[in-house]
Amino acid sequence: MQSSSSVKACFCVLSVLGALAAQDKPAQTPPPRPPAPVVSPEVHTDATVTFRFRDPNAAEVKLWRDGADGVPMQKDDQGVWSVTTAPLAPDYYGYAFTADGVRLLDPSNHDLVPSLLSPRNVVHVPGPSSLPWELNDVSHGEIHRHFYKSNVAGDDRDYYVYTPAGYNPAAKKTYPVLYLLHGFSDDASGWTAIGHANVILDNLIAQGKAKPMIVVMPLGYGTMKFVHVGWDAWSNAELRDRNFEKFGEALLTEVMPQVEGEYRITRDRNARAIAGLSMGGKESLLTGLNNLDKFSWIGAFSSAGAPNEDFQKDFPSLDAKANQQLHLLWIACGTEDGLITVNRNLRAWLKTKGVKETEIETPGMHTWMVWRRNLAEFAQLLFR
Amino acid sequence: MQSSSSVKACFCVLSVLGALAAQDKPAQTPPPRPPAPVVSPEVHTDATVTFRFRDPNAAEVKLWRDGADGVPMQKDDQGVWSVTTAPLAPDYYGYAFTADGVRLLDPSNHDLVPSLLSPRNVVHVPGPSSLPWELNDVSHGEIHRHFYKSNVAGDDRDYYVYTPAGYNPAAKKTYPVLYLLHGFSDDASGWTAIGHANVILDNLIAQGKAKPMIVVMPLGYGTMKFVHVGWDAWSNAELRDRNFEKFGEALLTEVMPQVEGEYRITRDRNARAIAGLSMGGKESLLTGLNNLDKFSWIGAFSSAGAPNEDFQKDFPSLDAKANQQLHLLWIACGTEDGLITVNRNLRAWLKTKGVKETEIETPGMHTWMVWRRNLAEFAQLLFR
Repeated sequence: MQSSSSVKACFCVLSVLGALAAQDKPAQTPPPRPPAPVVSPEVHTDATVTFRFRDPNAAEVKLWRDGADGVPMQKDDQGVWSVTTAPLAPDYYGYAFTADGVRLLDPSNHDLVPSLLSPRNVVHVPGPSSLPWELNDVSHGEIHRHFYKSNVAGDDRDYYVYTPAGYNPAAKKTYPVLYLLHGFSDDASGWTAIGHANVILDNLIAQGKAKPMIVVMPLGYGTMKFVHVGWDAWSNAELRDRNFEKFGEALLTEVMPQVEGEYRITRDRNARAIAGLSMGGKESLLTGLNNLDKFSWIGAFSSAGAPNEDFQKDFPSLDAKANQQLHLLWIACGTEDGLITVNRNLRAWLKTKGVKETEIETPGMHTWMVWRRNLAEFAQLLFR
Repeated sequence: MQSSSSVKACFCVLSVLGALAAQDKPAQTPPPRPPAPVVSPEVHTDATVTFRFRDPNAAEVKLWRDGADGVPMQKDDQGVWSVTTAPLAPDYYGYAFTADGVRLLDPSNHDLVPSLLSPRNVVHVPGPSSLPWELNDVSHGEIHRHFYKSNVAGDDRDYYVYTPAGYNPAAKKTYPVLYLLHGFSDDASGWTAIGHANVILDNLIAQGKAKPMIVVMPLGYGTMKFVHVGWDAWSNAELRDRNFEKFGEALLTEVMPQVEGEYRITRDRNARAIAGLSMGGKESLLTGLNNLDKFSWIGAFSSAGAPNEDFQKDFPSLDAKANQQLHLLWIACGTEDGLITVNRNLRAWLKTKGVKETEIETPGMHTWMVWRRNLAEFAQLLFR
């Protein structure tokens, strides 16, 4: 976690390696002394975490951590701001700082979470090996990254595929498939980079708690304009609808044929699941429930939507006949998530339609702490 | 490239999605107005680039860009620091800022380069499609990421494998293999994340300029302690030697058997190359030249070493007999790289041994701009 003490060294391996040349010669003039290194984050044995940030001239520095927004930090006489948390439950926590209102990454922590709008750092509070996202000494699956030109979206894009340990592309055996969708601002790497989906699946499969499956993680935007606009995109109904429509089209007509052509995937709706978080939860519902000939296992984790969402417009032909087709409709949300209302509204609407679903409410906000647990629970139910 | 204007929105999709609920109601009290968004970097049509960073209270902000260290930035009356470059040659440029001596990433640019010591942002100055790293409308290969427990290094680690377009694991055809090694502070993703090795290979193979090949990109540390120590690691001779020794052992006894078991790789020294940059250049020379029964194509890009490096100790049994075994020994370095001296010394020593090599000196410093060009040139020579 600790970065270099020397600013210059951070930039220029050349200067460092070059310094080997001069190591036996005394320097003529000593270089300016760089500030002492800052250790951040520091995870203590009692599971408290100290965050530190050097900024001698800032008037105000705050910590924004998953589950704790805008925590004030205190400055010492060296210009280093710090704050120590209460003991934290074992997990991965995303975070960043603000200094005088400007969001900044922790320069002492190289561990970064990619995002198209708000990259953040991450700190791991380690826990027992029984936690589904902890790395265990089990056989590991493989992550594949594919690149293709999307005619639907009109861009070059990528998708990721997880294959479980023991997967053999030359063998006859086929696997069920889960299409797993990220949230708004994430990229296609989200579910592996911070969701640790591969670790979760490795563990569950090794323990016999989940069936060996292939997991396909596509880029979740039907049009990149939706995310390029930034967070305001959600108030543009036309753009939002187009995003969802084109996402479904890209998934069904581009990604799905490609992966079914390349991987040993069982081509059967009974062996095909779709799930996702937030924007990806909405997409799982839209693409899944409107294509019950293709999907029979559907999961929505903290799925997005306006509280006044028009579900009849979203699912025009959905009715109780879906119960014969659906093996699982799993709708989860954290009770402290602002999207709990739309999720409760959705479940109420489904009841009026006579569509059976599994309701999951857990403690938690709109964070990966909730979604990793959602995946670990949902994956155990699939393909049974 | 543009990040959100709202600090709060950056952290909490919840608040944004929740705001959809209230969109028809006038706010009771308007939230504090966030600072206007900063656009950075801005690539202009004349290939100049403006970098911007908001920090109203800093006394001094500088830009550190590949090829330009410590460029002063000027503050405007909004507290936004900026600098505009001269026109830049088309390329990917890594960069970061320092504010009052503290290295910081650009909060307006989500495009990040992973590094275990010094993550940085990157800006793309686009160029003609003939440049080897520009994405072209050609068939793309695939990137695989593998995870395993290393007994040699005593840790859990990963490696990446590039397979070219059309690679079929079930077919009989086998491919030659290039082991491609990153530099100090990079992780195993370096050659794809910022080296764009997959794009370079896609282009060269599509143009018929390079033979279709598999590229294996392992983690380049024999012991993670070597990088955890930071840049001072290079002055610890014992640690450095152990790093190189254990790296070679992990490559030869763990990674190579795994990839030869899983991929359709031609198991023949005539079809096996090793190359790398900086630390990875040194490792390519050490592992390659000391295992000529396994490798016959060796490339060193800006390879690391002290100017007084003891080559006789590094390559105790190397002599002119190697010329019969080596198809290519390609030693490249930028003329503005501080490592040019050790590379010239190495070549002079090889001459005294009667070992033939190909000398490449190009303009450039110790940067990925040099190494992408090195790979594009080196890859065309392989397996002919």
